[in-house]
Amino acid sequence: MFAKRSRVLLGLPDAEFAQRRPGSNTMTKREVRAIALANLEVHLYTVLWDIGSGTGSVAIEAAHLATLGHIYAIECDTGALAAIATNCQHFNATNVTIVAGRAPQVLRGLPDPDAVFVGGSGGDLSAILEEVMARLHPQGVLVVNLTSFEHLSEATNSLRRAHWGVDCTLVNIARTQNILDVTRFAALNPVFVLTAHRPQRPEQPVGERKEIDG
Amino acid sequence: MFAKRSRVLLGLPDAEFAQRRPGSNTMTKREVRAIALANLEVHLYTVLWDIGSGTGSVAIEAAHLATLGHIYAIECDTGALAAIATNCQHFNATNVTIVAGRAPQVLRGLPDPDAVFVGGSGGDLSAILEEVMARLHPQGVLVVNLTSFEHLSEATNSLRRAHWGVDCTLVNIARTQNILDVTRFAALNPVFVLTAHRPQRPEQPVGERKEIDG
Amino acid sequence: MFAKRSRVLLGLPDAEFAQRRPGSNTMTKREVRAIALANLEVHLYTVLWDIGSGTGSVAIEAAHLATLGHIYAIECDTGALAAIATNCQHFNATNVTIVAGRAPQVLRGLPDPDAVFVGGSGGDLSAILEEVMARLHPQGVLVVNLTSFEHLSEATNSLRRAHWGVDCTLVNIARTQNILDVTRFAALNPVFVLTAHRPQRPEQPVGERKEIDG
Amino acid sequence: MFAKRSRVLLGLPDAEFAQRRPGSNTMTKREVRAIALANLEVHLYTVLWDIGSGTGSVAIEAAHLATLGHIYAIECDTGALAAIATNCQHFNATNVTIVAGRAPQVLRGLPDPDAVFVGGSGGDLSAILEEVMARLHPQGVLVVNLTSFEHLSEATNSLRRAHWGVDCTLVNIARTQNILDVTRFAALNPVFVLTAHRPQRPEQPVGERKEIDG
Repeated sequence: MFAKRSRVLLGLPDAEFAQRRPGSNTMTKREVRAIALANLEVHLYTVLWDIGSGTGSVAIEAAHLATLGHIYAIECDTGALAAIATNCQHFNATNVTIVAGRAPQVLRGLPDPDAVFVGGSGGDLSAILEEVMARLHPQGVLVVNLTSFEHLSEATNSLRRAHWGVDCTLVNIARTQNILDVTRFAALNPVFVLTAHRPQRPEQPVGERKEIDG
Repeated sequence: MFAKRSRVLLGLPDAEFAQRRPGSNTMTKREVRAIALANLEVHLYTVLWDIGSGTGSVAIEAAHLATLGHIYAIECDTGALAAIATNCQHFNATNVTIVAGRAPQVLRGLPDPDAVFVGGSGGDLSAILEEVMARLHPQGVLVVNLTSFEHLSEATNSLRRAHWGVDCTLVNIARTQNILDVTRFAALNPVFVLTAHRPQRPEQPVGERKEIDG
Repeated sequence: MFAKRSRVLLGLPDAEFAQRRPGSNTMTKREVRAIALANLEVHLYTVLWDIGSGTGSVAIEAAHLATLGHIYAIECDTGALAAIATNCQHFNATNVTIVAGRAPQVLRGLPDPDAVFVGGSGGDLSAILEEVMARLHPQGVLVVNLTSFEHLSEATNSLRRAHWGVDCTLVNIARTQNILDVTRFAALNPVFVLTAHRPQRPEQPVGERKEIDG
Repeated sequence: MFAKRSRVLLGLPDAEFAQRRPGSNTMTKREVRAIALANLEVHLYTVLWDIGSGTGSVAIEAAHLATLGHIYAIECDTGALAAIATNCQHFNATNVTIVAGRAPQVLRGLPDPDAVFVGGSGGDLSAILEEVMARLHPQGVLVVNLTSFEHLSEATNSLRRAHWGVDCTLVNIARTQNILDVTRFAALNPVFVLTAHRPQRPEQPVGERKEIDG
């Protein structure tokens, strides 16, 4: 079982992740994770920051995809840091570095990313996005999962002020549950998945990403 | 651009796929594809049947994930077969075999699968599921994407009669569109993603999948 | 407050209803009720059966609309019957008759309806629909709210076998909740609202409903 | 048929409304209208402003409910004004005054409302909300239907700056369509239904609404 799960590249079951606070229900769910990873355009060499990593679920699935890249799981909550470590070991994610500390400050010591995932954010969303916009690779992608209206506005406004292209996907998922002898749909809460790209400059030299695509 | 796209492991843009009938809007959309691939539990060695492959989008993304496995894209529509070939070349999916013919008959000549995706089905859904249930690997996964009520009933009934475990995910996605200076959400039609597993037999020997997990 | 609420014609707040089992969360929610009432095509003189009335919420809002009609709230659960009585008094719904007993048997003693609402059903959904199809006014409407997959199939199959026209609305609602200083969307579980009409017979005499429309 | 439709209190069929621009698909859909009317807490005596009335569908259904109240359908588009007039006549809505002109200016000549519906807004949403906040009855309700992200932010910010209580309902509806011999769900685009109430002042005298509630 463990051997099998450690090889699955996508779609790890939510229930197999150790949680910071069991029952808190804040982890990025399997279906939403799949969409976020698709939007992150992960490739074999991706360097990814997973900011506010929580259980590490996005970091771990990204690590299984970007086997020649590297994932930084950034988290400031002590309990969550322990859960990430447990989960990386359980799912055999060896190319994940767990970074204890608060974003954006702690991001300054990390290599520039090809892709950034912000999984809900703690406090300083605008400051985090400032740092990401300064550091993200020219063809890189930023994905922000948002469940609150205020953070959705804040993120959109920050990115648009800097002329970044912003797309948003509204994800409503319901899963069947067997209760007695009937199957009901239980809804997950809606998530807004923001995907942002740096404004395209026509003068940008072709071949800039040679080291990655070559 | 092509070089970069050919390396992205998940999340190929829908607009880059050649279509059988442009505007028919029946291809499995990027977000739904990501969820289907997560549910298919693709690993490096996966042998996957993509039945009713359409544009080949699921086959191609599965092929990018299962680099040491093999994907069979089964399709009976001549125009669609041409589109699949074009798309496999465009996205550099080398481990895809395009199989012209009608399921379930044409499935008989293929190796047994670890994972099966049915992308909407043409006519004979029950007969297809019978063949899949007979041939799928003991720990394999079957995923069926359904948009019609009648097919959802038919698939669920077929699988449950055979005591397969069936879960269903209801996926409602909306994407922002920029119209004039405002951003509106445009909804994709809801999709039911059925995921089915063979009934678990307690006597099943541990280690049966050693050749794959080892 | 009470005076004002008793006059509101639609949109009574869910939290003001006495519940059979507080926390059981099975009442038809305000937004879904509004859609069901719209589909029921309630007019001033409507005679409506609310089968499996629960808290009586649909019966009470229908009663406020059909002030010259009459509503039968049918329920077999003793605790629910007490809740309906409390709610009818609280919301000043005077044209509701509470009918204790099990459908379809108990329906036999009631006048034929113009509109029928089935709010989830207890056991014998097919038998209930048989009785409704026999008794519903020629231009009447049947609305069935369903949350389970099995009941959705059963209802659709029963109605289609009798050549009734069936439409289904899939309703996904999320409401904002204020948690700390942010506003999140909390999803209600999806509901399938089936709306069915008797097969149209061309020979049906015009003016049949004169007593109501005149 | 006309006679019957003219008596239905809620749930008029969308297809029966004359449209400003057929195919433009901007009218408030039947299900969303039902939710908006529920949130508007319409009573028999309601004075309602329907700002940006479009086809007049909300105005007309509100008029059928508030038979002793009055509805003002405010619209600046000439083609839409003609459609509203046609629809009021077709659906026999006699207590609707069609007001040609641009909000907020044109609102100044109208009596204060108990309820206000803003159905998408043309240009000056913030200025419209300012006027509404100044004029709405102390226990009145404001409902704003929004499909664009920018307007959702603008409306929420305007209302919160004035300390109004704001709730938002996210509505995702899909309706079955029969295509050949199968039934598919076709999604309506998601709508955000904002509902806002004046900040409650504890010193507000009880009995203020005696003329309506008594």
